[in-house]
Amino acid sequence: MVAGNGDIRVPEMADMTVGIIGLGLIGGSLARRLARRGVNVIAWNHRDHPYVQAEADGIHCMRTLADLAAAKPAVIVLCNPLKAMPAVLAELKPVLDPTATTLTDVGSVKGMVRDQVEAAGLGECYVGAHPMAGNELSGWQAADPALYDDALWAVTVCDDTSYARFHMVSQMILDGIGNRVIVLNDTVHDQAAALISHMPHVVATALINQLTDDPNRNIAAALAAGSWRDMTRVALTDPDRTRAMVDEDAVNVESLLRSMAARLTAVADALHDGDNDELTRFFADGQPFRNYKMAQQSGTIDYAERDVAFDPAYWQTELLSSARRGEHIIGFAGDHIVRVQVRSAV
Amino acid sequence: MVAGNGDIRVPEMADMTVGIIGLGLIGGSLARRLARRGVNVIAWNHRDHPYVQAEADGIHCMRTLADLAAAKPAVIVLCNPLKAMPAVLAELKPVLDPTATTLTDVGSVKGMVRDQVEAAGLGECYVGAHPMAGNELSGWQAADPALYDDALWAVTVCDDTSYARFHMVSQMILDGIGNRVIVLNDTVHDQAAALISHMPHVVATALINQLTDDPNRNIAAALAAGSWRDMTRVALTDPDRTRAMVDEDAVNVESLLRSMAARLTAVADALHDGDNDELTRFFADGQPFRNYKMAQQSGTIDYAERDVAFDPAYWQTELLSSARRGEHIIGFAGDHIVRVQVRSAV
Repeated sequence: MVAGNGDIRVPEMADMTVGIIGLGLIGGSLARRLARRGVNVIAWNHRDHPYVQAEADGIHCMRTLADLAAAKPAVIVLCNPLKAMPAVLAELKPVLDPTATTLTDVGSVKGMVRDQVEAAGLGECYVGAHPMAGNELSGWQAADPALYDDALWAVTVCDDTSYARFHMVSQMILDGIGNRVIVLNDTVHDQAAALISHMPHVVATALINQLTDDPNRNIAAALAAGSWRDMTRVALTDPDRTRAMVDEDAVNVESLLRSMAARLTAVADALHDGDNDELTRFFADGQPFRNYKMAQQSGTIDYAERDVAFDPAYWQTELLSSARRGEHIIGFAGDHIVRVQVRSAV
Repeated sequence: MVAGNGDIRVPEMADMTVGIIGLGLIGGSLARRLARRGVNVIAWNHRDHPYVQAEADGIHCMRTLADLAAAKPAVIVLCNPLKAMPAVLAELKPVLDPTATTLTDVGSVKGMVRDQVEAAGLGECYVGAHPMAGNELSGWQAADPALYDDALWAVTVCDDTSYARFHMVSQMILDGIGNRVIVLNDTVHDQAAALISHMPHVVATALINQLTDDPNRNIAAALAAGSWRDMTRVALTDPDRTRAMVDEDAVNVESLLRSMAARLTAVADALHDGDNDELTRFFADGQPFRNYKMAQQSGTIDYAERDVAFDPAYWQTELLSSARRGEHIIGFAGDHIVRVQVRSAV
């Protein structure tokens, strides 16, 4: 396929070896999907209980992280838990050949992982990634190649990211996994994740606290219907996990919570003052999102496709602009040209 | 059954005539359910298009509101839209025999309806009611007796409410409709409804506004998953309807929005200050509600039943206390004794 613009060359998928660290739900599903699609997959897990089944699925399981690195896979995907990241990176650093291998990961926060990778002295090899895939299960037992069906990946880059390494990781996602890509920087990713997940988890928790603190809580709970059930569902999941997620993205969550508090206070003030203009504005403000959802739900959408050429000197910002327009990369169409689907825009 | 303690006597259900005003989703379903269960049902609708089908279902349709009132039903249930309430009440006032008929309704706000009923000079006949039933449909076409399967009704009373009239309306709900009852006052009802529905609708709307106002809205929308979808679903419904609902319960919604804003700000401050104790408290606060939901979801619950005797001089407050304990009335067990199910408590 297309040659990289550095020392790194992007091999054809059939010639690419991918190393998976961690065979839980996310890593196990990924390893199984890549192997099924003909990619050479090697893997390491902190315990070897999945190895018999994984080998039967065509995944070559390694005894140690050093063995995995020594095989010089073109890409290593860190699928270990975030809390194990510093230990895994410290073990990889002395054995990884940075000229042979590009590092990526699947973590749901990107700034923190990049900091950890850089602290381990592996920053030059790293391109971040976050697949929009998952369910409420966990562990190898739940691993399923279909978890990635039609998934979108956020690939996160910084000013120093090698284009060739970005290309390599994206090629793995597009051709190896058969998914779509948007290119973000860590800040935009972590702010967006805070907006659509981390902050709403806090809001849902505040709702159940509001009920629990009410002397008429049993009456309120008895009257509760679908709107309450939907809005508090995520507050019923493990609060320790939610707290960890919020802590990892604390700056963004803090800022969004202050913005939400200001919005709620503005409505309270408008109700108090009988300010109909403000209420009208409040209920009209999100109409573009309602229209976007209606368009999505109106049936099967045939997304238009087009080629987007970008300046190699500004590939990070130009591909971020493409993502902002609602375009999803579905392939490379030449040197510094990506093929995109034009998705619905808010 | 049990005799009332005023001029009003509660007839056996087979001898009770119920008048339904408004054959939309809520009123039509109610009329069909009562008729199917053997209650004599008369009805009036502002347009007569449902009458042929309603008559076939055993519902006696009346040409005018005056005809309906002249039939002296023991209970009239106002199922007309809230905005039609003043006009309907004004038309009923000169033709209703208050010694023969008790008025009730199915409105989702109770204080405002009581004010309207009192303004029309019909306060002495009135007992409020609000069934926890409904779906996203509307109109007679969607009317379905099963809409009330296993429904809970909030029956709302005030210091002046006649016990006999409360008994009459409750008897219709318990025996006629086959549902459960909790007894509330208007304030408790409207505060609880604001807590579990009206305020969360504003919160969901604020969430979609937050996304719509973000320059990275298309990226955020692309990353959105189940938690975002669930928490914003109600913001996608008709914003004019949501606004009307909020306006009708403005004082309670205002107060709850300020409380929610304070909770979100407290978390923002704790994240800013690294206040782990505050975060621990925040994520632990709603645990009783998580436990309550887990108990509910753990399978079929056989609720314990018991009789609750209450002082006839304080029946309103004693039955409200029963509701606060999480008890639902399933029948009358004698003079000033109700049979309750002891439901899960938060």
